[in-house]
Amino acid sequence: MDIVAGLLAGDRGAVARLISMVEDDGQEARQALAALYPHTGRAHIVGVTGVPGAGKSTLVNELTKEYRGKGKRVGIVAVDATSPFSGGALLGDRIRMQELTGDPGVFIRSMATRGSLGGLARATGDVVKVLDAAGYDVIFVETVGAGQSEVEIAKASHTTIVVTAPGLGDEIQALKAGILEIADIFAVNKADREGADRTALELEAMLDLNEQEWRPPVLKTIALHGEGIADVVEAVEAHAVYLKESGQFAVRERGRAKGELEAILRHELIERLFGKVGGDRFEALLDMVVRRELDPYLAAEMLLREMR
Amino acid sequence: MDIVAGLLAGDRGAVARLISMVEDDGQEARQALAALYPHTGRAHIVGVTGVPGAGKSTLVNELTKEYRGKGKRVGIVAVDATSPFSGGALLGDRIRMQELTGDPGVFIRSMATRGSLGGLARATGDVVKVLDAAGYDVIFVETVGAGQSEVEIAKASHTTIVVTAPGLGDEIQALKAGILEIADIFAVNKADREGADRTALELEAMLDLNEQEWRPPVLKTIALHGEGIADVVEAVEAHAVYLKESGQFAVRERGRAKGELEAILRHELIERLFGKVGGDRFEALLDMVVRRELDPYLAAEMLLREMR
Repeated sequence: MDIVAGLLAGDRGAVARLISMVEDDGQEARQALAALYPHTGRAHIVGVTGVPGAGKSTLVNELTKEYRGKGKRVGIVAVDATSPFSGGALLGDRIRMQELTGDPGVFIRSMATRGSLGGLARATGDVVKVLDAAGYDVIFVETVGAGQSEVEIAKASHTTIVVTAPGLGDEIQALKAGILEIADIFAVNKADREGADRTALELEAMLDLNEQEWRPPVLKTIALHGEGIADVVEAVEAHAVYLKESGQFAVRERGRAKGELEAILRHELIERLFGKVGGDRFEALLDMVVRRELDPYLAAEMLLREMR
Repeated sequence: MDIVAGLLAGDRGAVARLISMVEDDGQEARQALAALYPHTGRAHIVGVTGVPGAGKSTLVNELTKEYRGKGKRVGIVAVDATSPFSGGALLGDRIRMQELTGDPGVFIRSMATRGSLGGLARATGDVVKVLDAAGYDVIFVETVGAGQSEVEIAKASHTTIVVTAPGLGDEIQALKAGILEIADIFAVNKADREGADRTALELEAMLDLNEQEWRPPVLKTIALHGEGIADVVEAVEAHAVYLKESGQFAVRERGRAKGELEAILRHELIERLFGKVGGDRFEALLDMVVRRELDPYLAAEMLLREMR
């Protein structure tokens, strides 16, 4: 396909068009993804997640500048999983990232979910593949929230940076337990604020309880002033080396492919069911469920039987 | 079934056992859910969501006491969608809710995801059904984060309270856009903090831009001191009346049933695929995807063809 050839030749417009195609889904996008798939697998994918207010976007901004200084090409996928209805992208992040948009070595894409969460994860994975094939060396996948949706997306990364900041409320303690298990690097951002040392110490104390082959470094940053950024980049690079040497890289690649394949199957299976059973029949059974004449598990059973 | 008879007769032990069954899934749980399903549809389901640190648990605690004072029985389902790995429940919330656990008119259950997000949403819906059939008049479904996972769960409610608080960081502005579309009531909690009036005014300004039949009231609360709680309960009741009179109640019930039916179908379909194709074949194709010899869409296509 011409567009894939353009992408591989470094045509920025082809990248943008391919991403739009992928977001719209459809047969054409699938063909393009199949054609570019053998060219993927070169980029290092870095997930950036954490609680709202921690300053993730600013951090990604600064990390990008640091990588650019080292001559690396950087892709940024900003994922907003919080609004399943509006479909609006992150205006704030776009504004914050404005200083990067003039750089031809940086490609930024904001994504918001239009349909299901599964759909968003799938589309994010496909956009990452486009950027990977287009030769971006480092791809940041930045998520807005700190819920499971974000965790699912972070799982699709090679290295996950969890960003936190002092004084973000006590429920963050509860969040940490889950986030501890996905973090490869902790950034305590806004480290000039009161309580930064305590936040860092608390994280270290939690890590003490958790024996791991790779102990996530806890790094203090002030992204707004560019402080601590080089250390984070160094940690990402050290983690990449660890992944390769320990064999964990292969494990993560396989986990990523598995999640992707299952998401595609889930989507396709339900599409086929609707295609075979027909919308009218689905609606009729749904009416019976709403009227409490049929429980949803039995209704599902009937639809599956009729699918054959 | 004996256990369902026990539940309908008001046996608390039967409720607890049924919830455990439902969480473990399996054939027995399905039969019980089918038997109790005709007895559901009486409870008013109230989703409580919002950013971490806003004080959701304390608010639910106080709302529960207020409803208890009115002689209503209250169920609380505290959902933690943030930790897909640890499976740990919300210790903090449990402690905070301790003062309610001696009350036989209150049933509290913490849930954490063990597998997929879809699985959690499905299990939450089923636990709500158990509590509904058991005669709890009001059921709170409280979620920890503010990501899409929480929104999905909130969508399964009749009335959704979005809790916020002053000074929780600027990214909350970005969250609001999505949350605006699911909120039926806003609670600006910790209203004794600086900035509470501004937060409330900002929400009102956003609502001014959004023409809706039901304009969500913005209510200031200090849950820790029980202030503003009666107003929130009044708003929930007014919203329930609005839902019934406007026909929106039927719309939401249908949306709820639809989401549930689709989640069950997604789960069943993939189970069946694995059952038919076999794990070895799936792994073999996955290996090819990891080696970039096959793109995931094509691999999915092959598995679906082999399923027949």
